[in-house]
Amino acid sequence: MAQPGRLIGLGVGPGDPELITVKALRLLRESPVVAYFVAKGKKGNAFGIIEAHLQAAQTQMPLVYPVTTEVLPEPLSYEQIISDFYDQAAEEVAEHLQAGRDVAVICEGDPFFYGSYMYLHDRLAERFEAQVVPGVCSMLGGASVLGVPLVYRNQSLSVLSGVLPHDDLKRRLADADAAVIMKLGRNFHKVREVLAELGLADRALYVERATMSNQKIVPLNDVDPMSSPYFSLIIVPGERWQG
Amino acid sequence: MAQPGRLIGLGVGPGDPELITVKALRLLRESPVVAYFVAKGKKGNAFGIIEAHLQAAQTQMPLVYPVTTEVLPEPLSYEQIISDFYDQAAEEVAEHLQAGRDVAVICEGDPFFYGSYMYLHDRLAERFEAQVVPGVCSMLGGASVLGVPLVYRNQSLSVLSGVLPHDDLKRRLADADAAVIMKLGRNFHKVREVLAELGLADRALYVERATMSNQKIVPLNDVDPMSSPYFSLIIVPGERWQG
Repeated sequence: MAQPGRLIGLGVGPGDPELITVKALRLLRESPVVAYFVAKGKKGNAFGIIEAHLQAAQTQMPLVYPVTTEVLPEPLSYEQIISDFYDQAAEEVAEHLQAGRDVAVICEGDPFFYGSYMYLHDRLAERFEAQVVPGVCSMLGGASVLGVPLVYRNQSLSVLSGVLPHDDLKRRLADADAAVIMKLGRNFHKVREVLAELGLADRALYVERATMSNQKIVPLNDVDPMSSPYFSLIIVPGERWQG
Repeated sequence: MAQPGRLIGLGVGPGDPELITVKALRLLRESPVVAYFVAKGKKGNAFGIIEAHLQAAQTQMPLVYPVTTEVLPEPLSYEQIISDFYDQAAEEVAEHLQAGRDVAVICEGDPFFYGSYMYLHDRLAERFEAQVVPGVCSMLGGASVLGVPLVYRNQSLSVLSGVLPHDDLKRRLADADAAVIMKLGRNFHKVREVLAELGLADRALYVERATMSNQKIVPLNDVDPMSSPYFSLIIVPGERWQG
Protein backbone atom coordinates (compact mmCIF):
# COMPACT_ATOMS: atom_id res chain seq x y z
CA MET A 1 0.00 0.00 0.00
CA ALA A 2 1.17 3.50 -0.77
CA GLN A 3 2.35 5.70 2.06
CA PRO A 4 -0.47 8.13 2.85
CA GLY A 5 -0.26 11.65 1.48
CA ARG A 6 0.06 14.79 3.56
CA LEU A 7 -2.75 17.19 4.34
CA ILE A 8 -1.41 20.70 3.72
CA GLY A 9 -3.17 23.83 4.90
CA LEU A 10 -1.78 26.46 2.60
CA GLY A 11 -2.18 30.13 3.43
CA VAL A 12 -2.07 32.11 0.19
CA GLY A 13 -2.30 35.59 1.70
CA PRO A 14 -4.88 38.39 1.65
CA GLY A 15 -5.44 38.84 -2.08
CA ASP A 16 -2.46 40.29 -3.94
CA PRO A 17 -1.04 37.16 -5.65
CA GLU A 18 2.47 38.38 -4.82
CA LEU A 19 1.70 38.17 -1.11
CA ILE A 20 1.93 34.39 -1.15
CA THR A 21 4.98 33.05 0.66
CA VAL A 22 7.82 31.31 -1.15
CA LYS A 23 7.02 28.19 0.86
CA ALA A 24 3.32 28.15 0.00
CA LEU A 25 4.18 28.60 -3.66
CA ARG A 26 6.64 25.69 -3.58
CA LEU A 27 4.22 23.34 -1.82
CA LEU A 28 1.39 24.43 -4.11
CA ARG A 29 3.46 23.46 -7.15
CA GLU A 30 4.45 20.14 -5.59
CA SER A 31 0.90 19.09 -4.62
CA PRO A 32 -0.86 16.67 -6.97
CA VAL A 33 -4.24 17.72 -5.54
CA VAL A 34 -5.29 21.31 -4.87
CA ALA A 35 -8.51 21.70 -2.88
CA TYR A 36 -10.41 24.85 -2.01
CA PHE A 37 -13.68 25.89 -0.42
CA VAL A 38 -15.93 27.94 -2.61
CA ALA A 39 -19.49 29.23 -2.82
CA LYS A 40 -21.72 27.75 -5.51
CA GLY A 41 -21.18 29.47 -8.84
CA LYS A 42 -18.13 31.38 -7.63
CA LYS A 43 -14.46 30.96 -8.44
CA GLY A 44 -13.35 31.77 -4.93
CA ASN A 45 -10.76 34.29 -3.75
CA ALA A 46 -8.14 31.74 -2.76
CA PHE A 47 -8.37 30.03 -6.14
CA GLY A 48 -8.10 33.33 -7.97
CA ILE A 49 -4.89 34.11 -6.09
CA ILE A 50 -3.08 30.94 -7.14
CA GLU A 51 -4.80 30.06 -10.43
CA ALA A 52 -1.90 31.25 -12.57
CA HIS A 53 0.47 28.77 -10.91
CA LEU A 54 -1.58 25.62 -11.52
CA GLN A 55 -0.42 23.00 -14.00
CA ALA A 56 -2.59 20.72 -16.09
CA ALA A 57 -1.44 17.59 -14.24
CA GLN A 58 -2.76 18.86 -10.92
CA THR A 59 -6.21 17.75 -9.78
CA GLN A 60 -8.42 20.69 -8.87
CA MET A 61 -10.85 19.88 -6.09
CA PRO A 62 -13.49 22.52 -5.39
CA LEU A 63 -15.37 21.93 -2.14
CA VAL A 64 -18.65 23.71 -2.80
CA TYR A 65 -20.63 25.02 0.18
CA PRO A 66 -24.19 23.66 0.15
CA VAL A 67 -25.61 26.90 1.62
CA THR A 68 -24.69 30.55 1.33
CA THR A 69 -26.47 31.99 4.35
CA GLU A 70 -26.46 31.10 8.04
CA VAL A 71 -30.16 31.76 8.48
CA LEU A 72 -32.29 28.95 7.11
CA PRO A 73 -36.01 28.12 7.30
CA GLU A 74 -37.03 25.48 9.87
CA PRO A 75 -36.47 22.59 10.20
CA LEU A 76 -33.14 23.17 8.40
CA SER A 77 -30.18 24.00 10.59
CA TYR A 78 -27.09 25.73 9.23
CA GLU A 79 -24.95 24.02 11.84
CA GLN A 80 -26.15 20.57 10.85
CA ILE A 81 -25.90 21.12 7.10
CA ILE A 82 -22.45 22.65 7.28
CA SER A 83 -21.21 19.98 9.67
CA ASP A 84 -22.38 17.22 7.32
CA PHE A 85 -20.73 19.08 4.46
CA TYR A 86 -17.38 19.24 6.27
CA ASP A 87 -17.68 15.53 7.12
CA GLN A 88 -18.17 14.70 3.48
CA ALA A 89 -15.44 17.04 2.27
CA ALA A 90 -13.04 15.46 4.78
CA GLU A 91 -13.84 12.02 3.42
CA GLU A 92 -13.22 13.12 -0.17
CA VAL A 93 -9.87 14.60 0.85
CA ALA A 94 -9.08 11.47 2.85
CA GLU A 95 -9.48 9.31 -0.26
CA HIS A 96 -6.64 11.17 -1.97
CA LEU A 97 -4.50 11.01 1.17
CA GLN A 98 -5.07 7.29 1.54
CA ALA A 99 -4.05 6.80 -2.09
CA GLY A 100 -0.74 8.50 -1.27
CA ARG A 101 -1.46 11.88 -2.79
CA ASP A 102 -0.68 15.11 -0.94
CA VAL A 103 -3.64 17.49 -0.82
CA ALA A 104 -2.98 21.23 -0.55
CA VAL A 105 -6.02 23.04 0.80
CA ILE A 106 -5.56 26.64 -0.23
CA CYS A 107 -6.86 29.30 2.13
CA GLU A 108 -7.19 33.02 1.71
CA GLY A 109 -5.14 34.71 4.41
CA ASP A 110 -3.98 32.22 7.04
CA PRO A 111 -5.37 28.68 7.47
CA PHE A 112 -5.72 28.88 11.28
CA PHE A 113 -7.09 32.44 11.39
CA TYR A 114 -10.81 31.92 10.74
CA GLY A 115 -10.03 29.61 7.78
CA SER A 116 -12.38 26.85 6.64
CA TYR A 117 -9.32 24.60 6.47
CA MET A 118 -9.64 24.28 10.26
CA TYR A 119 -12.68 22.04 9.86
CA LEU A 120 -10.75 19.62 7.67
CA HIS A 121 -7.78 19.79 10.02
CA ASP A 122 -9.96 18.96 13.02
CA ARG A 123 -11.35 15.96 11.17
CA LEU A 124 -8.16 14.61 9.57
CA ALA A 125 -5.04 15.69 11.47
CA GLU A 126 -5.19 12.70 13.80
CA ARG A 127 -5.39 10.21 10.95
CA PHE A 128 -2.94 11.82 8.53
CA GLU A 129 0.22 13.87 8.65
CA ALA A 130 -0.81 17.52 8.49
CA GLN A 131 1.31 20.57 7.76
CA VAL A 132 0.18 24.17 7.91
CA VAL A 133 1.89 26.98 6.04
CA PRO A 134 0.95 30.28 7.67
CA GLY A 135 -0.05 33.19 5.47
CA VAL A 136 -0.37 36.96 5.61
CA CYS A 137 -3.80 37.50 7.16
CA SER A 138 -6.35 39.99 5.89
CA MET A 139 -6.05 42.40 8.81
CA LEU A 140 -2.33 42.89 8.16
CA GLY A 141 -3.02 43.29 4.47
CA GLY A 142 -5.56 45.91 5.49
CA ALA A 143 -3.18 47.81 7.77
CA SER A 144 -0.52 47.83 5.03
CA VAL A 145 -2.75 49.42 2.38
CA LEU A 146 -4.25 51.86 4.88
CA GLY A 147 -0.69 52.83 5.79
CA VAL A 148 -1.38 52.71 9.49
CA PRO A 149 0.64 51.05 12.26
CA LEU A 150 -1.67 48.66 14.10
CA VAL A 151 -0.24 48.16 17.61
CA TYR A 152 2.63 49.80 19.50
CA ARG A 153 4.78 48.34 22.25
CA ASN A 154 2.59 46.86 24.97
CA GLN A 155 -0.78 47.71 23.50
CA SER A 156 -3.35 44.94 23.23
CA LEU A 157 -5.04 44.12 19.97
CA SER A 158 -8.64 42.89 19.88
CA VAL A 159 -9.81 41.10 16.78
CA LEU A 160 -13.59 41.19 16.83
CA SER A 161 -16.37 39.85 14.65
CA GLY A 162 -18.98 42.28 13.37
CA VAL A 163 -21.52 39.56 14.14
CA LEU A 164 -21.22 40.28 17.88
CA PRO A 165 -24.32 41.84 19.46
CA HIS A 166 -24.23 45.63 19.94
CA ASP A 167 -23.50 45.64 23.67
CA ASP A 168 -20.89 42.90 23.55
CA LEU A 169 -19.09 44.63 20.70
CA LYS A 170 -19.23 47.94 22.56
CA ARG A 171 -17.84 46.51 25.78
CA ARG A 172 -14.97 44.76 23.99
CA LEU A 173 -14.14 47.79 21.85
CA ALA A 174 -14.16 50.10 24.86
CA ASP A 175 -11.57 47.85 26.49
CA ALA A 176 -9.29 47.59 23.44
CA ASP A 177 -6.08 49.57 22.84
CA ALA A 178 -6.34 48.74 19.15
CA ALA A 179 -8.97 46.75 17.29
CA VAL A 180 -9.77 45.07 14.02
CA ILE A 181 -13.40 44.36 13.21
CA MET A 182 -13.94 41.67 10.62
CA LYS A 183 -17.02 40.10 9.03
CA LEU A 184 -18.79 43.36 8.38
CA GLY A 185 -21.21 42.90 5.48
CA ARG A 186 -24.72 43.21 6.84
CA ASN A 187 -23.30 44.08 10.27
CA PHE A 188 -21.73 47.30 9.07
CA HIS A 189 -24.46 49.66 10.24
CA LYS A 190 -24.41 48.33 13.80
CA VAL A 191 -20.61 48.45 13.95
CA ARG A 192 -20.45 52.06 12.78
CA GLU A 193 -23.06 52.98 15.38
CA VAL A 194 -21.02 51.41 18.16
CA LEU A 195 -17.88 53.20 16.99
CA ALA A 196 -19.72 56.52 17.02
CA GLU A 197 -21.10 55.87 20.51
CA LEU A 198 -17.55 55.28 21.76
CA GLY A 199 -16.14 58.35 20.02
CA LEU A 200 -13.97 56.10 17.86
CA ALA A 201 -15.46 56.90 14.47
CA ASP A 202 -12.73 59.41 13.62
CA ARG A 203 -9.96 56.98 14.46
CA ALA A 204 -11.50 54.07 12.56
CA LEU A 205 -10.44 53.21 9.01
CA TYR A 206 -12.33 51.11 6.50
CA VAL A 207 -11.14 49.01 3.60
CA GLU A 208 -12.80 46.54 1.24
CA ARG A 209 -10.90 43.63 -0.30
CA ALA A 210 -7.53 44.88 0.91
CA THR A 211 -4.62 44.16 -1.50
CA MET A 212 -6.99 42.72 -4.13
CA SER A 213 -7.21 44.32 -7.56
CA ASN A 214 -10.69 45.65 -6.71
CA GLN A 215 -9.62 47.05 -3.33
CA LYS A 216 -11.56 50.08 -2.11
CA ILE A 217 -10.63 52.48 0.69
CA VAL A 218 -13.57 54.64 1.75
CA PRO A 219 -13.98 57.08 4.66
CA LEU A 220 -16.09 55.33 7.29
CA ASN A 221 -18.90 57.86 7.02
CA ASP A 222 -19.18 57.41 3.27
CA VAL A 223 -19.69 53.65 3.33
CA ASP A 224 -23.08 52.48 2.11
CA PRO A 225 -24.12 49.89 4.74
CA MET A 226 -26.09 47.98 2.13
CA SER A 227 -23.09 47.40 -0.10
CA SER A 228 -20.34 46.60 2.40
CA PRO A 229 -18.99 43.21 1.39
CA TYR A 230 -18.04 40.39 3.72
CA PHE A 231 -14.39 40.92 2.82
CA SER A 232 -14.21 44.36 4.34
CA LEU A 233 -12.73 45.34 7.65
CA ILE A 234 -12.37 48.23 10.04
CA ILE A 235 -9.16 49.05 11.83
CA VAL A 236 -8.97 51.16 14.97
CA PRO A 237 -5.21 51.63 15.22
CA GLY A 238 -3.44 51.89 18.56
CA GLU A 239 -2.55 55.39 19.67
CA ARG A 240 0.80 56.43 18.33
CA TRP A 241 3.63 55.97 20.77
CA GLN A 242 5.82 59.03 20.83
CA GLY A 243 9.01 56.98 21.13
CA MET B 1 17.65 66.88 -8.22
CA ALA B 2 16.92 63.18 -8.13
CA GLN B 3 13.39 62.01 -7.46
CA PRO B 4 13.27 60.92 -3.81
CA GLY B 5 13.47 57.20 -3.02
CA ARG B 6 10.71 55.16 -1.44
CA LEU B 7 10.59 54.08 2.18
CA ILE B 8 9.66 50.39 2.19
CA GLY B 9 8.58 48.55 5.32
CA LEU B 10 9.31 44.97 4.42
CA GLY B 11 7.80 42.15 6.48
CA VAL B 12 10.05 39.10 6.16
CA GLY B 13 7.94 36.67 8.18
CA PRO B 14 8.32 34.87 11.49
CA GLY B 15 11.68 33.15 11.05
CA ASP B 16 11.66 30.39 8.44
CA PRO B 17 13.36 32.10 5.48
CA GLU B 18 10.85 30.42 3.14
CA LEU B 19 8.01 32.26 4.86
CA ILE B 20 8.94 35.53 3.18
CA THR B 21 6.42 36.63 0.54
CA VAL B 22 7.24 36.73 -3.16
CA LYS B 23 6.64 40.48 -3.07
CA ALA B 24 8.97 41.14 -0.14
CA LEU B 25 11.66 39.09 -1.82
CA ARG B 26 11.32 41.04 -5.06
CA LEU B 27 11.43 44.43 -3.34
CA LEU B 28 14.31 43.32 -1.17
CA ARG B 29 16.34 42.43 -4.26
CA GLU B 30 15.42 45.72 -5.94
CA SER B 31 16.34 47.94 -2.98
CA PRO B 32 19.75 49.64 -3.11
CA VAL B 33 19.69 50.15 0.68
CA VAL B 34 18.61 47.50 3.19
CA ALA B 35 18.14 48.78 6.75
CA TYR B 36 17.36 46.83 9.90
CA PHE B 37 17.09 47.40 13.62
CA VAL B 38 19.42 45.32 15.72
CA ALA B 39 20.76 45.02 19.26
CA LYS B 40 24.43 45.86 19.81
CA GLY B 41 26.65 42.89 18.98
CA LYS B 42 23.79 40.88 17.46
CA LYS B 43 23.05 39.99 13.86
CA GLY B 44 19.33 40.35 14.28
CA ASN B 45 16.56 37.90 13.36
CA ALA B 46 15.26 39.85 10.39
CA PHE B 47 18.75 40.12 8.89
CA GLY B 48 19.34 36.40 9.40
CA ILE B 49 16.16 35.62 7.49
CA ILE B 50 17.14 37.54 4.35
CA GLU B 51 20.94 37.48 4.50
CA ALA B 52 21.28 34.85 1.79
CA HIS B 53 19.49 37.07 -0.73
CA LEU B 54 21.69 40.15 -0.37
CA GLN B 55 24.02 41.18 -3.15
CA ALA B 56 27.35 42.95 -2.81
CA ALA B 57 26.08 46.13 -4.46
CA GLN B 58 23.42 46.66 -1.80
CA THR B 59 24.18 48.99 1.09
CA GLN B 60 23.55 47.32 4.44
CA MET B 61 22.39 49.74 7.08
CA PRO B 62 22.20 48.37 10.63
CA LEU B 63 20.33 50.67 13.02
CA VAL B 64 21.82 49.69 16.37
CA TYR B 65 19.74 50.19 19.51
CA PRO B 66 21.61 52.32 22.07
CA VAL B 67 20.11 50.40 25.01
CA THR B 68 19.02 46.82 25.55
CA THR B 69 16.78 47.21 28.60
CA GLU B 70 13.79 49.44 29.36
CA VAL B 71 14.80 50.00 32.98
CA LEU B 72 17.64 52.50 33.27
CA PRO B 73 19.27 54.27 36.24
CA GLU B 74 18.17 57.88 36.85
CA PRO B 75 18.38 60.41 35.31
CA LEU B 76 18.38 58.32 32.13
CA SER B 77 14.99 57.66 30.57
CA TYR B 78 14.43 54.81 28.16
CA GLU B 79 11.68 56.77 26.42
CA GLN B 80 13.96 59.75 25.81
CA ILE B 81 16.96 57.73 24.67
CA ILE B 82 14.95 55.55 22.32
CA SER B 83 13.03 58.52 20.94
CA ASP B 84 16.30 60.34 20.16
CA PHE B 85 17.61 57.15 18.57
CA TYR B 86 14.57 56.85 16.28
CA ASP B 87 14.92 60.53 15.35
CA GLN B 88 18.51 59.97 14.34
CA ALA B 89 17.78 56.71 12.52
CA ALA B 90 15.01 58.46 10.58
CA GLU B 91 17.42 61.19 9.51
CA GLU B 92 19.98 58.65 8.32
CA VAL B 93 17.31 56.86 6.30
CA ALA B 94 16.04 60.21 4.98
CA GLU B 95 19.48 61.00 3.54
CA HIS B 96 19.28 57.95 1.29
CA LEU B 97 15.70 58.75 0.32
CA GLN B 98 16.58 62.34 -0.52
CA ALA B 99 19.41 61.09 -2.71
CA GLY B 100 16.87 59.05 -4.66
CA ARG B 101 17.63 55.66 -3.20
CA ASP B 102 14.85 53.31 -2.03
CA VAL B 103 15.37 52.03 1.50
CA ALA B 104 13.90 48.67 2.47
CA VAL B 105 13.54 48.39 6.23
CA ILE B 106 13.31 44.68 6.94
CA CYS B 107 11.11 43.60 9.82
CA GLU B 108 10.65 40.24 11.44
CA GLY B 109 6.99 39.27 11.13
CA ASP B 110 4.89 42.18 9.95
CA PRO B 111 6.01 45.85 9.90
CA PHE B 112 2.80 47.25 11.45
CA PHE B 113 2.34 44.51 14.04
CA TYR B 114 4.62 45.67 16.88
CA GLY B 115 7.47 46.34 14.42
CA SER B 116 10.16 48.97 15.03
CA TYR B 117 9.61 50.08 11.44
CA MET B 118 6.53 51.93 12.73
CA TYR B 119 8.76 54.54 14.39
CA LEU B 120 10.45 55.33 11.09
CA HIS B 121 7.12 55.32 9.30
CA ASP B 122 5.64 57.80 11.78
CA ARG B 123 8.63 60.09 11.24
CA LEU B 124 9.01 59.82 7.46
CA ALA B 125 5.76 58.79 5.75
CA GLU B 126 4.57 62.38 5.43
CA ARG B 127 7.78 63.51 3.76
CA PHE B 128 8.43 60.51 1.51
CA GLU B 129 6.46 57.92 -0.39
CA ALA B 130 6.09 54.91 1.88
CA GLN B 131 5.05 51.37 1.02
CA VAL B 132 4.45 48.55 3.45
CA VAL B 133 4.63 44.89 2.50
CA PRO B 134 2.76 42.87 5.10
CA GLY B 135 4.32 39.69 6.44
CA VAL B 136 3.37 36.50 8.24
CA CYS B 137 3.32 37.53 11.89
CA SER B 138 4.84 35.48 14.70
CA MET B 139 1.55 34.42 16.26
CA LEU B 140 0.42 32.77 13.02
CA GLY B 141 3.83 31.17 12.65
CA GLY B 142 3.32 29.90 16.22
CA ALA B 143 -0.15 28.50 15.57
CA SER B 144 1.10 26.73 12.44
CA VAL B 145 3.92 24.85 14.19
CA LEU B 146 1.75 24.07 17.21
CA GLY B 147 -0.79 22.66 14.76
CA VAL B 148 -3.68 24.39 16.45
CA PRO B 149 -6.52 26.42 14.90
CA LEU B 150 -6.51 29.84 16.52
CA VAL B 151 -10.03 31.28 16.16
CA TYR B 152 -13.30 29.83 14.89
CA ARG B 153 -16.21 31.63 13.26
CA ASN B 154 -17.29 34.57 15.43
CA GLN B 155 -14.80 34.13 18.25
CA SER B 156 -12.77 37.14 19.30
CA LEU B 157 -8.99 37.02 19.46
CA SER B 158 -7.09 39.00 22.09
CA VAL B 159 -3.43 39.68 21.45
CA LEU B 160 -1.90 40.59 24.79
CA SER B 161 1.50 41.65 26.01
CA GLY B 162 3.08 39.69 28.84
CA VAL B 163 4.20 43.05 30.23
CA LEU B 164 0.62 43.80 31.38
CA PRO B 165 0.16 43.84 35.17
CA HIS B 166 -1.28 40.66 36.71
CA ASP B 167 -4.83 41.92 37.23
CA ASP B 168 -5.12 43.60 33.86
CA LEU B 169 -3.85 40.50 32.09
CA LYS B 170 -6.26 38.35 34.07
CA ARG B 171 -9.27 40.50 33.30
CA ARG B 172 -8.47 40.59 29.58
CA LEU B 173 -7.75 36.87 29.38
CA ALA B 174 -10.97 36.02 31.22
CA ASP B 175 -12.88 37.96 28.58
CA ALA B 176 -11.12 36.40 25.56
CA ASP B 177 -12.47 33.59 23.37
CA ALA B 178 -8.94 32.95 22.14
CA ALA B 179 -5.70 34.68 23.09
CA VAL B 180 -2.08 35.08 22.14
CA ILE B 181 0.33 36.34 24.77
CA MET B 182 3.51 37.84 23.37
CA LYS B 183 6.59 39.41 24.96
CA LEU B 184 7.06 36.74 27.58
CA GLY B 185 10.71 36.65 28.61
CA ARG B 186 10.94 37.82 32.21
CA ASN B 187 7.12 38.02 32.36
CA PHE B 188 6.67 34.30 31.89
CA HIS B 189 6.19 33.37 35.55
CA LYS B 190 3.42 35.94 36.05
CA VAL B 191 1.67 34.89 32.86
CA ARG B 192 1.68 31.21 33.77
CA GLU B 193 0.28 32.08 37.19
CA VAL B 194 -2.59 34.03 35.65
CA LEU B 195 -3.38 31.17 33.25
CA ALA B 196 -3.47 28.73 36.17
CA GLU B 197 -5.77 31.02 38.17
CA LEU B 198 -8.19 31.11 35.24
CA GLY B 199 -8.07 27.36 34.69
CA LEU B 200 -6.53 27.93 31.26
CA ALA B 201 -3.15 26.28 31.85
CA ASP B 202 -4.22 23.03 30.19
CA ARG B 203 -5.49 24.77 27.09
CA ALA B 204 -2.43 27.02 26.72
CA LEU B 205 0.42 26.11 24.37
CA TYR B 206 3.95 27.47 24.44
CA VAL B 207 6.51 27.88 21.69
CA GLU B 208 9.91 29.58 21.46
CA ARG B 209 11.20 31.05 18.21
CA ALA B 210 8.40 29.54 16.12
CA THR B 211 9.45 28.47 12.59
CA MET B 212 13.12 29.34 13.25
CA SER B 213 15.77 26.65 13.05
CA ASN B 214 16.14 26.69 16.84
CA GLN B 215 12.40 26.52 17.49
CA LYS B 216 11.36 24.83 20.75
CA ILE B 217 7.94 23.55 21.72
CA VAL B 218 7.68 22.83 25.44
CA PRO B 219 4.69 21.91 27.65
CA LEU B 220 3.75 25.03 29.60
CA ASN B 221 4.51 23.43 32.94
CA ASP B 222 8.02 22.43 31.86
CA VAL B 223 9.15 25.92 30.85
CA ASP B 224 11.95 27.34 32.98
CA PRO B 225 10.77 30.93 33.66
CA MET B 226 14.39 32.10 33.83
CA SER B 227 15.18 30.96 30.31
CA SER B 228 12.06 31.93 28.38
CA PRO B 229 13.25 34.20 25.58
CA TYR B 230 11.55 37.35 24.37
CA PHE B 231 10.67 35.57 21.13
CA SER B 232 8.37 33.09 22.76
CA LEU B 233 4.62 33.13 22.88
CA ILE B 234 1.65 31.41 24.42
CA ILE B 235 -1.48 30.55 22.49
CA VAL B 236 -4.84 29.86 24.11
CA PRO B 237 -6.75 28.57 21.09
CA GLY B 238 -10.45 29.20 20.68
CA GLU B 239 -12.71 26.31 21.61
CA ARG B 240 -13.25 24.00 18.70
CA TRP B 241 -16.42 24.64 16.81
CA GLN B 242 -18.20 21.37 16.13
CA GLY B 243 -19.28 22.46 12.65
